[in-house]
Amino acid sequence: MLILMNVNATDDQTQAVCKRVEELGFRPHPLPGATRCAIGITGNQGAVEADPLSQLPGVAEVIAVSKPYKLVSRDMKPEDTVVRFEGRDATIGGVEVALMAGPCGVESRDQLFRAAEAVAESGARFLRGGAFKPRTSPYAFQGMGEKGLEIMAEAREAFGLLVVTEAICHESLALVDQYADMIQIGARNMQNFALLKLAGRSRRPVLLKRGMSATLDELLMAAEYIMSEGNYNVVLCERGIRTFADHTRNTLDVGIVPAVKKLTHLPIIIDPSHAAGKRDKVVPLARAGVAVGADGVIVEVHCDPDHALSDGPQSLYPGQFAAMVENLRGIAQLVGRTMYDPKCKPVTAAVAR
Amino acid sequence: MLILMNVNATDDQTQAVCKRVEELGFRPHPLPGATRCAIGITGNQGAVEADPLSQLPGVAEVIAVSKPYKLVSRDMKPEDTVVRFEGRDATIGGVEVALMAGPCGVESRDQLFRAAEAVAESGARFLRGGAFKPRTSPYAFQGMGEKGLEIMAEAREAFGLLVVTEAICHESLALVDQYADMIQIGARNMQNFALLKLAGRSRRPVLLKRGMSATLDELLMAAEYIMSEGNYNVVLCERGIRTFADHTRNTLDVGIVPAVKKLTHLPIIIDPSHAAGKRDKVVPLARAGVAVGADGVIVEVHCDPDHALSDGPQSLYPGQFAAMVENLRGIAQLVGRTMYDPKCKPVTAAVAR
Amino acid sequence: MLILMNVNATDDQTQAVCKRVEELGFRPHPLPGATRCAIGITGNQGAVEADPLSQLPGVAEVIAVSKPYKLVSRDMKPEDTVVRFEGRDATIGGVEVALMAGPCGVESRDQLFRAAEAVAESGARFLRGGAFKPRTSPYAFQGMGEKGLEIMAEAREAFGLLVVTEAICHESLALVDQYADMIQIGARNMQNFALLKLAGRSRRPVLLKRGMSATLDELLMAAEYIMSEGNYNVVLCERGIRTFADHTRNTLDVGIVPAVKKLTHLPIIIDPSHAAGKRDKVVPLARAGVAVGADGVIVEVHCDPDHALSDGPQSLYPGQFAAMVENLRGIAQLVGRTMYDPKCKPVTAAVAR
Amino acid sequence: MLILMNVNATDDQTQAVCKRVEELGFRPHPLPGATRCAIGITGNQGAVEADPLSQLPGVAEVIAVSKPYKLVSRDMKPEDTVVRFEGRDATIGGVEVALMAGPCGVESRDQLFRAAEAVAESGARFLRGGAFKPRTSPYAFQGMGEKGLEIMAEAREAFGLLVVTEAICHESLALVDQYADMIQIGARNMQNFALLKLAGRSRRPVLLKRGMSATLDELLMAAEYIMSEGNYNVVLCERGIRTFADHTRNTLDVGIVPAVKKLTHLPIIIDPSHAAGKRDKVVPLARAGVAVGADGVIVEVHCDPDHALSDGPQSLYPGQFAAMVENLRGIAQLVGRTMYDPKCKPVTAAVAR
Repeated sequence: MLILMNVNATDDQTQAVCKRVEELGFRPHPLPGATRCAIGITGNQGAVEADPLSQLPGVAEVIAVSKPYKLVSRDMKPEDTVVRFEGRDATIGGVEVALMAGPCGVESRDQLFRAAEAVAESGARFLRGGAFKPRTSPYAFQGMGEKGLEIMAEAREAFGLLVVTEAICHESLALVDQYADMIQIGARNMQNFALLKLAGRSRRPVLLKRGMSATLDELLMAAEYIMSEGNYNVVLCERGIRTFADHTRNTLDVGIVPAVKKLTHLPIIIDPSHAAGKRDKVVPLARAGVAVGADGVIVEVHCDPDHALSDGPQSLYPGQFAAMVENLRGIAQLVGRTMYDPKCKPVTAAVAR
Repeated sequence: MLILMNVNATDDQTQAVCKRVEELGFRPHPLPGATRCAIGITGNQGAVEADPLSQLPGVAEVIAVSKPYKLVSRDMKPEDTVVRFEGRDATIGGVEVALMAGPCGVESRDQLFRAAEAVAESGARFLRGGAFKPRTSPYAFQGMGEKGLEIMAEAREAFGLLVVTEAICHESLALVDQYADMIQIGARNMQNFALLKLAGRSRRPVLLKRGMSATLDELLMAAEYIMSEGNYNVVLCERGIRTFADHTRNTLDVGIVPAVKKLTHLPIIIDPSHAAGKRDKVVPLARAGVAVGADGVIVEVHCDPDHALSDGPQSLYPGQFAAMVENLRGIAQLVGRTMYDPKCKPVTAAVAR
Repeated sequence: MLILMNVNATDDQTQAVCKRVEELGFRPHPLPGATRCAIGITGNQGAVEADPLSQLPGVAEVIAVSKPYKLVSRDMKPEDTVVRFEGRDATIGGVEVALMAGPCGVESRDQLFRAAEAVAESGARFLRGGAFKPRTSPYAFQGMGEKGLEIMAEAREAFGLLVVTEAICHESLALVDQYADMIQIGARNMQNFALLKLAGRSRRPVLLKRGMSATLDELLMAAEYIMSEGNYNVVLCERGIRTFADHTRNTLDVGIVPAVKKLTHLPIIIDPSHAAGKRDKVVPLARAGVAVGADGVIVEVHCDPDHALSDGPQSLYPGQFAAMVENLRGIAQLVGRTMYDPKCKPVTAAVAR
Repeated sequence: MLILMNVNATDDQTQAVCKRVEELGFRPHPLPGATRCAIGITGNQGAVEADPLSQLPGVAEVIAVSKPYKLVSRDMKPEDTVVRFEGRDATIGGVEVALMAGPCGVESRDQLFRAAEAVAESGARFLRGGAFKPRTSPYAFQGMGEKGLEIMAEAREAFGLLVVTEAICHESLALVDQYADMIQIGARNMQNFALLKLAGRSRRPVLLKRGMSATLDELLMAAEYIMSEGNYNVVLCERGIRTFADHTRNTLDVGIVPAVKKLTHLPIIIDPSHAAGKRDKVVPLARAGVAVGADGVIVEVHCDPDHALSDGPQSLYPGQFAAMVENLRGIAQLVGRTMYDPKCKPVTAAVAR
């Protein structure tokens, strides 16, 4: 259920409605919009009586929501969600196409710093890199753990980047929450509902990767799990799905971007590296992602990919990355977006979107 | 790497080899076989020198293992693993086809007891039922939690059944470990590696369900995660994969059974209920599962499926279940197996397999 | 649209209704049933007025059919279709499980005769073998053409078998129609609608293989194409679908058998050879097929598979085939079916199905 | 096998080599390149002895080709194939991104002419439209047949367009060959090898659509079928594959474009209309297609889509199409390509590709 407040409703009125919802045994989710506030209502206990709520001061309308997802729905919040980071210019979901880059995994201070410096120079505002790696084999490199997070936090300060890194269990989530700016939930954990709920209790934005065979509804329901715990800053990520096709590691499903834009207010970025699996297909797929309307791109970059402990073959060299960003910047303009350019601050305003 | 001991090697010799492996910084996994013992070696640190080990007393051969999985491999342990339960006749992976049945979720003491009584009468040795339910929607029934486990434990005593139930996080795993006989890891968590490792530290057998889009290799690697922590009692479960086909909820991939039998010594059972999604297809799929050579069947049974809180449409009525078991018993005989029949103990010996 | 005739309607009345349907510009399809006759109506020209037809003598009811398929639907013909062959005992879709076997392709008279003799001895009533092979590569063996058909026709006489073989274009279809007893349409041509229409104009039964990624609806619509031209003897065949799974060549979708049985009166058989791709998985899959309720099995058998020009690795040796048939015969009995046994004619009556 | 001629080999030498290949019982395929000529050799009869050929005048090297495809391979012909049309400027595979547009099916002279006029004005050089429609249902509109082709041929003259239209059998192929400029082979017929061979005997360029579940290798082998008959002007087309995803009708696999570019010299275009299935996703997917590097785009446009006899919901309005083309033109420039603009002939030279 969704309560739509009047355009001129006061904050006190909104808070009073939320309080009343709680008294009725449900959970209110105030969703401030550009012109007015909406309040989503969730809870297990069955249908809410609309009457006692529709009569409260400031309430414009009470709407029954029938889709399985509520908080993620554009019906509930028509304006795009723009994820912001305190004290930083970077956003996700606004006019600027977000650029995240870095190595697959943190391997050493030197390795991460070299990559961080390179991607920052080319215009990335986010540094990616795994300290906890979900690997198919128990005998493969599983990441540096907390030590890796410390290195990433150092790199953040050194290069002015925001850190996004994966959590794979309750313990790593607590650490990621402490060291990083954004919590990544990987494709294999997209339906690890216990982990999603924990991420929902953090105040950090969450990057939620689509599972290898997740439908759009399942992806949105996974985001709903996070939001239902009170964390509304969720960014979706398409990273390729599993199909019969064997010419790329996964099949990048660019068609999900316009589908997501229609159903939800949440941003969606694409990950061409994991879809491609091979370096030479990363750049074309990144171009396709920006052209189709994604809100960002997350790319693996490594200064010495031949010696990477994981995902070397799909990591770009810094030079390739720099050239790609130039290319993406042009495409972004053509679809009414901007991309940050460290060489010409301040950022120019976007062409009409 | 795999160390094969001599047929007449003593236990002391085996332990001495294990100790030496540890001193070299690796982890030994003694795997007793019918005629002789093998020792699997795992560890992150790269290649082991074979020389110092091949000279130890009792060692027959040191074999390099090139496949990504080691402990699950039939190369390492040629005999079928037979999972046993202390003080009970039930086995999984032996000549008897295991039968697991019960409701999707525990809803109340009365509901579970009625189902448990019915399935025990028909010959099930295992009672299934979820106390922690991984649901696509955060607003759907999530299970009774510990209270549900208590009810299952009571039913175990009342009807002489073994309890198998799902764990979805570290907290529920600790509880399932305490109350149940077998820990189920669901399809959505097949690559929740943190959970797999925890299950590997339990001494309870683990029922590992194949993920919706998991390849055979990925399934085996997930089992390897559990085994690499020291728990060798892993039972695989095929429950249908995600394909384009829409006439069943998932596509039951019976072909994985002979493929599994070739590569690994671990048992595999099939779950026709989650594959079918509709009651009328459960029985034919269960027949196909036993005919193809599965080591067991896990089926949803509910005494009042129209009022089930989850998976009602795919739950069999007790009468349907009883008729199905009669049918399966005949097919089991034809493929050289037995199925427990409470009406005619002791079980007759199997026809040559 | 479907016209249901009275139980005691005369043949003349049925013919008069058909004639009237034709005058209205549509096409009537009389479908005799156990108790009464139905007349399916097809035609491109839009909706038929029910009124002028419902008043004709002998008409019980005029029913609007909303599903995309009409003639294949069980709504139109509730009784199972049993395909018969003039002057032969063999049937498909009746109580007897049909057994078709032979080499992938006809390579020589000697090769085919050796295989035909072997499969006939084990109880096959149908000889399979391709004279026109749809091969992925233009440089691969494309079949012996008409010469191959001649050899098959000879083998039919020599061993009392019925011949089923594939047509791939209008020219080969005319030849197959002339030499064989049953026309096979392969998976790659399941939506070659021009070919389906031509097969519909033949009087020979058609074996229609499911396309590699065909949904159940698409398979039924392909059968509808054949039936809409007047040929009602269509047998469906599940031969594995394309999925991400790589442990079998295709994923045998046994769940389609009960789904087909519910929606259509047409028989369905399974092809474990093309699904498996490897010999050692053919027998378990064949067992699963009979257990799930298929009306027949089509299997590749070759006396010298190591030198086969196509599909050698998935062809059974005659001895393996004979053992498999014994096994299938037992399973058939358990699901209320029979299988022909040349060693004990006449066939024993089936257990209640 | 592939024979590489010397850079300065004469035409006579090349012809002599071809003659010798024929005498040996094989088929030569001369493939002129920018700097020198290669001769592909095909034939069923097994391995060719390299010796007698490598000694002929003008021969530089004889190379064994191990991949299943030969003529399509970039190994055999490193330069991109550019398909040309006599007396016209339009090309496919050159620097200009080809634009094909028009209705799904030809329904009437008026309908086609209105669409043709609109798409020509926006810069399309090719008019698409089906006269023979492969429809899932035998009761659906199957196209106007030869009458439809006549209308298309008229529109070609009226608006200066090239006509591309589908053939579905030997009869329609003969007609399409007579009336159209380019023969389309649809997704359902990608492995209709008889039809591919017939298309290979035509002199018209062929547009070959990827089958719904075709791997890249299968697509290339289908092209090889056409080329092995002597027709080297084949254009591939990605139109979406069948996956579990349900938010678009098919999943547009943009990743196949760079994969195709690596393996073959043939052009590849994309069809966003059939992938999307819904109008609002066509434009973003078309943008992704040009951005990823496709050699062209084929789009459905209809002046009155609500009354279209087929595919109305995915057809663009002329105004949407015109806006889309403007957008694509910008992206084409950014990836080093051009797009024809009727408002500013002659075409400006492309930026370095």
